[in-house]
Amino acid sequence: MPIVLYDLAGANPALRFSPYCWRTRLAIAHKDLPVKTIAWRFSDAAKIGFSGQGKVPVIRDGDHVVSDSWTIAEYLEEAYSEHPTLFGGPTGQRHARFVNAWADSTLNPAISRMIVLDVWRVIDPRDQEYFRKSREARFGMTLEEVCRDRGKRIAEFRRTTLQPVRLVLEAQQWLGGDSPSYADYIVFSGFQWARCVSDFELLAEDDPIGAWRLRMLEMFGGLAGSAPIAAAA
Amino acid sequence: MPIVLYDLAGANPALRFSPYCWRTRLAIAHKDLPVKTIAWRFSDAAKIGFSGQGKVPVIRDGDHVVSDSWTIAEYLEEAYSEHPTLFGGPTGQRHARFVNAWADSTLNPAISRMIVLDVWRVIDPRDQEYFRKSREARFGMTLEEVCRDRGKRIAEFRRTTLQPVRLVLEAQQWLGGDSPSYADYIVFSGFQWARCVSDFELLAEDDPIGAWRLRMLEMFGGLAGSAPIAAAA
Repeated sequence: MPIVLYDLAGANPALRFSPYCWRTRLAIAHKDLPVKTIAWRFSDAAKIGFSGQGKVPVIRDGDHVVSDSWTIAEYLEEAYSEHPTLFGGPTGQRHARFVNAWADSTLNPAISRMIVLDVWRVIDPRDQEYFRKSREARFGMTLEEVCRDRGKRIAEFRRTTLQPVRLVLEAQQWLGGDSPSYADYIVFSGFQWARCVSDFELLAEDDPIGAWRLRMLEMFGGLAGSAPIAAAA
Repeated sequence: MPIVLYDLAGANPALRFSPYCWRTRLAIAHKDLPVKTIAWRFSDAAKIGFSGQGKVPVIRDGDHVVSDSWTIAEYLEEAYSEHPTLFGGPTGQRHARFVNAWADSTLNPAISRMIVLDVWRVIDPRDQEYFRKSREARFGMTLEEVCRDRGKRIAEFRRTTLQPVRLVLEAQQWLGGDSPSYADYIVFSGFQWARCVSDFELLAEDDPIGAWRLRMLEMFGGLAGSAPIAAAA
């Protein structure tokens, strides 16, 4: 029986862009487990009421219901300990939590400031009012204002926000070392989020992060690279 | 025969404040190895010429000479694999490199902008001209200007720069998990740097990072906590 993943979708139900759902999708692929995804919208909160909370990703794996991408990754690592490891042991797991915390608090908020208006454009019309209201309250300005000067801010984002990723990838092929780990999926999912909803390019052409991103797009038979992206406006 | 560590010192030779040397000092303590430190100043570049480069930390361990804090940590892990592990395995080691890259590119530069003038005050008079010139070139302004508005910038530093550390320490006792790993020494050494040279407080009183910092100060018989600090001006 496949794992069921409730996965944030756009107006186009095939468009799956949530960076947190992508972490889970890639973790399930890493574990080489079958998955069935269910398109979910912000207005579908009731449909995941069984999980005791209102956000995706949520997985149902037989009798197990797990929410929160980090908790799901820990669940998969323990429940499928004979499958390829996501963390390479307990300390690898604890260290990966730092990468997770950095992506949640630094990388994804910075990407959000570049693409949040593009996200709003592709989500289901029933979600748009909620999304705009909640995000504008968070940013303290309109979505148009948030993204207006992204062309100016991108240089600083590339130079400073991405620098830890760049330093690591200059020294080793993957964040996980010689092969990808959950740390790679955490960071890549931010790029995949942007790719799915926006044609705004996060990386300069000569950025060494680009080669890694390309390898990530090609993994698992092109799982991320062949995923639908929003049509250019 | 103890490991010899060339360790950046202030005008007071007992004052050891370099965050990179502290990483090494704590890694050696973690490995439970004897160490002999040698006070080193920027003007002593020739004294570490045998290492083929001009920066500390440098260690001499029997016939082995190793420079660069990360390379030293990897050397210690491999050469003393029967001693307590710094990384908890290969993936833990690769994931720790992200913490190292983040501290080098984000945490320490942010701390530097708070305390670089205090560093200048405590270093050896023979080092002061070189230090001021090189750092003012890096910042594009005088050291006084760099630190002038630190009282205003500290709130943002606490809220955003430190947030990944805070999120991890709210979920686990150490960055390494149930016990400290090299990831803890990387991050703590930035705080220890500030503590040794400055009375400017990096943490708010109620910051959950504070309890971890206190435990770090007490480790290894108070190695960091009992280290000399600069006398208040």
